[in-house]
Amino acid sequence: MNSPVLEAIYKRRSIREFNVRGISLEKLHEIVKAGIWAPSGLNNQPWRFVIIQDSSFKEKLAGQTHYGHIVRGANALIAVYLAKDEMYDAVKDHQSAGACIQNMLLAAEALDLGAVWLGQILKNKDAVNSILGLSDNFDLMAVVALGYPLHHNQKSKRKKLSELLLRHI
Amino acid sequence: MNSPVLEAIYKRRSIREFNVRGISLEKLHEIVKAGIWAPSGLNNQPWRFVIIQDSSFKEKLAGQTHYGHIVRGANALIAVYLAKDEMYDAVKDHQSAGACIQNMLLAAEALDLGAVWLGQILKNKDAVNSILGLSDNFDLMAVVALGYPLHHNQKSKRKKLSELLLRHI
Repeated sequence: MNSPVLEAIYKRRSIREFNVRGISLEKLHEIVKAGIWAPSGLNNQPWRFVIIQDSSFKEKLAGQTHYGHIVRGANALIAVYLAKDEMYDAVKDHQSAGACIQNMLLAAEALDLGAVWLGQILKNKDAVNSILGLSDNFDLMAVVALGYPLHHNQKSKRKKLSELLLRHI
Repeated sequence: MNSPVLEAIYKRRSIREFNVRGISLEKLHEIVKAGIWAPSGLNNQPWRFVIIQDSSFKEKLAGQTHYGHIVRGANALIAVYLAKDEMYDAVKDHQSAGACIQNMLLAAEALDLGAVWLGQILKNKDAVNSILGLSDNFDLMAVVALGYPLHHNQKSKRKKLSELLLRHI
């Protein structure tokens, strides 16, 4: 079936290599705005964001993950948080964060950018909060690394629908 | 900024009232496929799906939530599960489920359908598993109710970006 939205969903890939071109403030704000328009339980909008473009901060964050080379090479990082005092249900709030991040990834591609969702850095989430000067009211969900793609060679694959669809009743 | 994808993200609304028109199998499979193309940590693809269109099953599920009228009025329900034996990290797997569901909601609108993400039914997730004949290896994440929209009057609002963006460094 043809639709620009379906095409975007199927063509999106994790982009880990970027060129040096800078991302405009307008595009960064558009990506965050796309995240904000995800649904959340009771419309509680528990998400909060930190945009990082300063090299020294990127370098400090790079030290907190195995994927430091991606963090260093990205023009911008968006750290996605949940504000604990806005949460109402851990599972549902984590799901909402995922919906928010997915919107951000789709928005990035719509704006000719590449993005990758970094989760491994969560093992050092307390150190990340310390680097970013945030209290423990903020729970790190992911870091989205962004830049103009160096290439579009990324491949990915998925299980067949028939393996994942348990029943149709 | 103009893009069909951004427009879809901003225009999507929770649709709770449907007309009686049936949804084709092709569209239902397309929606699940869109969900499957969400990213997951380590590409573990922990999501599983049950499509429900049978009236007697819808009626049983309607009894498990305050939103039974939505469940009854929907042409199709897609119950989204995580397979526990495929999970690797609860928070990240719940996020992936959220990304998957967001893709499904966007796909539904791209196919001229309306959808709403139902979470309140999770309080009776064991009963839902029993109705659907699933073992406790499957953990219910949400039920997505689908149909052709009766109207497009839904409004929604979000906090301002300036309230949600903690820092830009």
